[in-house]
Amino acid sequence: MRCALSLLLLIVLSGVSVRADEGMWTLDNLPLQRLQERYGFAPSAAWLEKVRLASVRFNDGGSGAFVSPDGLVITNHHVALGQLQKMSDEKKDFVREGFFARRPAEERPCPDLELNVLVSTEDVTARILAVISSTAAEAVQNVQRKAEMSRVEKESFDRTGLRSDVVELYHGGQYQLYRYKKYTDIRLVMAAEVQAAFYGGDFDNFVFPRHDLDMAFFRAYEGGKPVRSPAYLRWSARGAADGELVFVSGHPGSTDRLKTVRQLEFIRDTVLPERLRGMVRRRGVLRQYSASGAEPARRARNKLFGLENSFKALSGALLGLQDAKLMAAKRADEDALRAAAAARPELAPAARMRPGPAPTQELPEAHGPAASAWDRIAAMQDKAAARYPDLIFRGTGDSKLAEFAHAIVRWVAEVEKPNDVRYPEFRETALDSLRFRTFSPAPVYPDLEERMLALDLAESLDELGAAHPYVIAALGGLTPEGKARELIAGTGLADPKERRRLVEGGAAAVAASTDPLIVWARGLDPLYRELRKWREDELESVDALEGGRIARARFAVAGKSAYPDATFTLRLSYGKVAGYEEGTTRVPYKTTFHGLYDRAASFAGKPPFDLSPLEAARKGCVDLDTPLDFVTTNDIIGGNSGSPVINREGEYVGLVFDGNIPSLVGRYAYSDERNRAVAVHSAGILEALSKVYRMRRLVKELRGAR
Amino acid sequence: MRCALSLLLLIVLSGVSVRADEGMWTLDNLPLQRLQERYGFAPSAAWLEKVRLASVRFNDGGSGAFVSPDGLVITNHHVALGQLQKMSDEKKDFVREGFFARRPAEERPCPDLELNVLVSTEDVTARILAVISSTAAEAVQNVQRKAEMSRVEKESFDRTGLRSDVVELYHGGQYQLYRYKKYTDIRLVMAAEVQAAFYGGDFDNFVFPRHDLDMAFFRAYEGGKPVRSPAYLRWSARGAADGELVFVSGHPGSTDRLKTVRQLEFIRDTVLPERLRGMVRRRGVLRQYSASGAEPARRARNKLFGLENSFKALSGALLGLQDAKLMAAKRADEDALRAAAAARPELAPAARMRPGPAPTQELPEAHGPAASAWDRIAAMQDKAAARYPDLIFRGTGDSKLAEFAHAIVRWVAEVEKPNDVRYPEFRETALDSLRFRTFSPAPVYPDLEERMLALDLAESLDELGAAHPYVIAALGGLTPEGKARELIAGTGLADPKERRRLVEGGAAAVAASTDPLIVWARGLDPLYRELRKWREDELESVDALEGGRIARARFAVAGKSAYPDATFTLRLSYGKVAGYEEGTTRVPYKTTFHGLYDRAASFAGKPPFDLSPLEAARKGCVDLDTPLDFVTTNDIIGGNSGSPVINREGEYVGLVFDGNIPSLVGRYAYSDERNRAVAVHSAGILEALSKVYRMRRLVKELRGAR
Repeated sequence: MRCALSLLLLIVLSGVSVRADEGMWTLDNLPLQRLQERYGFAPSAAWLEKVRLASVRFNDGGSGAFVSPDGLVITNHHVALGQLQKMSDEKKDFVREGFFARRPAEERPCPDLELNVLVSTEDVTARILAVISSTAAEAVQNVQRKAEMSRVEKESFDRTGLRSDVVELYHGGQYQLYRYKKYTDIRLVMAAEVQAAFYGGDFDNFVFPRHDLDMAFFRAYEGGKPVRSPAYLRWSARGAADGELVFVSGHPGSTDRLKTVRQLEFIRDTVLPERLRGMVRRRGVLRQYSASGAEPARRARNKLFGLENSFKALSGALLGLQDAKLMAAKRADEDALRAAAAARPELAPAARMRPGPAPTQELPEAHGPAASAWDRIAAMQDKAAARYPDLIFRGTGDSKLAEFAHAIVRWVAEVEKPNDVRYPEFRETALDSLRFRTFSPAPVYPDLEERMLALDLAESLDELGAAHPYVIAALGGLTPEGKARELIAGTGLADPKERRRLVEGGAAAVAASTDPLIVWARGLDPLYRELRKWREDELESVDALEGGRIARARFAVAGKSAYPDATFTLRLSYGKVAGYEEGTTRVPYKTTFHGLYDRAASFAGKPPFDLSPLEAARKGCVDLDTPLDFVTTNDIIGGNSGSPVINREGEYVGLVFDGNIPSLVGRYAYSDERNRAVAVHSAGILEALSKVYRMRRLVKELRGAR
Repeated sequence: MRCALSLLLLIVLSGVSVRADEGMWTLDNLPLQRLQERYGFAPSAAWLEKVRLASVRFNDGGSGAFVSPDGLVITNHHVALGQLQKMSDEKKDFVREGFFARRPAEERPCPDLELNVLVSTEDVTARILAVISSTAAEAVQNVQRKAEMSRVEKESFDRTGLRSDVVELYHGGQYQLYRYKKYTDIRLVMAAEVQAAFYGGDFDNFVFPRHDLDMAFFRAYEGGKPVRSPAYLRWSARGAADGELVFVSGHPGSTDRLKTVRQLEFIRDTVLPERLRGMVRRRGVLRQYSASGAEPARRARNKLFGLENSFKALSGALLGLQDAKLMAAKRADEDALRAAAAARPELAPAARMRPGPAPTQELPEAHGPAASAWDRIAAMQDKAAARYPDLIFRGTGDSKLAEFAHAIVRWVAEVEKPNDVRYPEFRETALDSLRFRTFSPAPVYPDLEERMLALDLAESLDELGAAHPYVIAALGGLTPEGKARELIAGTGLADPKERRRLVEGGAAAVAASTDPLIVWARGLDPLYRELRKWREDELESVDALEGGRIARARFAVAGKSAYPDATFTLRLSYGKVAGYEEGTTRVPYKTTFHGLYDRAASFAGKPPFDLSPLEAARKGCVDLDTPLDFVTTNDIIGGNSGSPVINREGEYVGLVFDGNIPSLVGRYAYSDERNRAVAVHSAGILEALSKVYRMRRLVKELRGAR
């Protein structure tokens, strides 16, 4: 029996963590030996440092890379979409027409784009755990934990002037201090036409073979000049070949691979179905709004794109979780880990070991051995389920103006508190970025705002009921539509100067404001604070503390051969360029421009399979055999959009923009049989820049940067 | 309850027969009203006559059409493959290189290709049924039925000189006399290279999007001159457009849509799994043989192609039958029909009405009302199951020489009997075609013959056991390999003159022969005759007689809105050019030459995705936007290969060569959601003929034929 168990353990624990090309690895914990064995190559420290410094985080959600020594950054068109939308108006639509700065002076400042580059990391696990008094109530431990995180960040910021974030990895198994160089003067250099970038529209999204030029170029400036970026990725005009080892560096947003079975069941049965239901509602409203005219369609475009994109991604993820085999494997993995933890005296009561590098230190026992970490997380899930409608149907996430109002009301209150007890988003170290976003000159469209706010309010009314205190406070006796009309028509928050005036005027200015949105947000503030405190004390504390214990049990049993769930921080994945089987046939590892023109002709040019104007006009100039898109086995997820694909020489060979449909289950588990990352090929980008877009300046910069 | 039943009946019975574009219709029973309603067009009698006379049956399995007034026939390359293989040798390989008669004199006679054109049909149901004495035992009724069929054929042949076949439709629900004009001097005009015709090989077989030029041209001659074919299909250089109504005329080989649930279960649980198992065995032997050298690979090529093709088709069909929903629908349909038959006094005991046009005539009751036709078919299936190994593991279908030996031994015995009691294949009306095939000069390869015969013998030994009388007689104490070596090494039957000598020498010559294969076939003959008699008396008789009763019950309940199962006789299907949904995206209605060159480049030219030499060499000459292949909702199945796609003007717009994967279930049921027929586009054929193959003579003939 012990034998059988050990074997099972070996299969399950290592099986979960060593599957072929699996893993979104932190750069300090790459499986170098496995890489060496599998591919005969392991990156050097210098290679890794260059890649780290060339990797760029787009703070509105995405990744990118420096590809010249002069601050030139490439990312996806769909990562740039938010900025393109904000830079466009009724007269000039850069989304539809693309953008081409043919001279340096034409490079166009973005309204509110912040880029980050990770310049150093430091393990602060010991320091965070040391302040937690394990005899205290969990809510207290949680406050201690967060206060210490805030102190670490503040000290670092004061000392270095760099953006400093304490990042929680392995669900609290590890704490790392990440320091970022921050860029806020970002200018747009080039963006493809949306029809070229998003060819095939929602139909082809997450599909391969694919034919997208999902690309945009920005340049980072400081002091009015392009920054020097000596750590950049040299452009490979040849690009990646079939079977070649490639790396993807970037900022995957969120995975749930280390969550407990109970948490996954909750996600499967409640979280995802509710989110999808909400998306269907929003999609309906946005489509109706879009249908009302060309300008409304333009205004709603990026919201609708984001919504459709998420809907397809989450639908795929839900299907993955509904796969009984996947859940059985998750259960077997968890059972094995629990059995191993129970069988090893040093891990009983369950899972309180610290990971390798930090000194091994038992946490004093807070709970009887009967209540394992898994049991306590299950109990936490029950609590969450009981109050779940409150957690998700009190949002105002769809109206930018309502979000501004809430942020301002909280902001002026939070900054009066000591730094380490504030909400993290209002800590000193976060305020610069917050100001940048809040005072953005990006346009806000009242008609769209009103529809979206009405939708939020209607959803609260529907789901929580008319008698719910939040609903009573939010509607004030009006209909959702009436309330939204009143709030949006009367507010002055569309003007960034008014937002700045309120923030800079502090609590007094906000208390004195008669702006209907501010008045409304003030009224809702106590309800928000009550709910957030409850969530932090009852849910977050258990998740972080017990999740950390499970993570440390895993380290103790299986070694540090696992990687943390994605947290929108820098990760490196490895894999190879490879097609796959589909049905009875094979999907090739790449597409060519021939494929684009085939698909357009095959649908007789019907949208969304029509060519962009420039693709159509310049067809005769293009070398049609040039690779366009390609697929790799790299382990990626949303947030990796815009990530560079890098060969072993550290060259730029591709631009990640998607995963294929089978990869959508990747939120919960990885497989390299058919899951693929989809990228634009570096040769295809060059061909398009030179032949379709005639951006000779840019081609020269990319080619010259060697 | 009656109401509910009626509603169910309406849904089920009409549901089964009126689903959108379903149906392989005989030309005398087209659903003209439905066509008119759905497409605003119903073909006239003249339209139908022209299509009938332009439609050509390829007797080695396939369809084709006259496309010029000078006997020019187009079909698929894979229909021509058998002849191409027989015309090739070690030095000249027309399969690999293609064939191009650049002058009329170069058109090359085929060794044994017979083409048929259906010139008239006549309903002979009344005459056949009239001779059946329903008080006799079923086996006797079956003999009466077949004898009368033979007499009808003989009379017609003697009177008209035309090939005359009595065709059993609706499983004996109807008998039709079909008269064919027969052509046996057929010459090859053009064949694409196999790599162009079968691009993507077995991987892409049954897949769409597809990029095949699956085409070959023949010409029918008489008296050394091209025949006049005034009823031909004019070539449309424009071809079919998206959404357009199109017809497919051709000779679908076999469907099982009208079989009882019990028969389908037997096919699902026994027939198909056994057939697939046997194919796997054969595939292994053929692949091993092919791997032994270039010439063996060439020799085995068409066998291997046929095997892989069937394997994929039957695997898809089996998956279809294993779909619980499909079987539930079949069961509901059958239950409803049985209930209806039971509820209508004129149909009790079950199902003995004749169809419309023939005078309504009750068959005298042969069995008690308790034993319905369905019950009797079920009992027949039980009998078949009990002796199933005998039925399928006593074959020698893989060795051509063994087949010749069996045919000759039976032939000389059968022709001594009165015509109407012979096996149908030896009736006077069939002997011409039989001579043509048996005395064919096509090459036979002893090394391949030996392997295939050894395989057949080994299978019999494995499956029936060493003590089985057939196995004892077939092996004579040797191993399968030893016996096959002895038989093939010693036989003179590879020479067509020897085969002719034996047949013309009659029973005496065969009795005197010491050819080891003839001696062996003589020894097996009694066993064969016993088994065949049992099969005819016990299985075939019940299937035909009771199947006919069920068919007539269906006519009585639902009218003649059904079509018969496919029988390799002329049918017309209608449908429209249409793409479909796949996963989250859309499959276009066509591909272009761009797609071909994309796929080749995307796999970096790796076989089987490499271009044919001429496709590669002439790439620069081709207008890449030209349509290549396209899909339609027409209801087709194997045997329709080579069928013309015809527009409402009666023009030639495409060349059917395949169904897509979802269509493989079509053997049992039709759906037009995703099931599609796949065809080469008439514009693509012209483009390839003129730019890739430079067959100006042929292009001129096609374009000029207007």
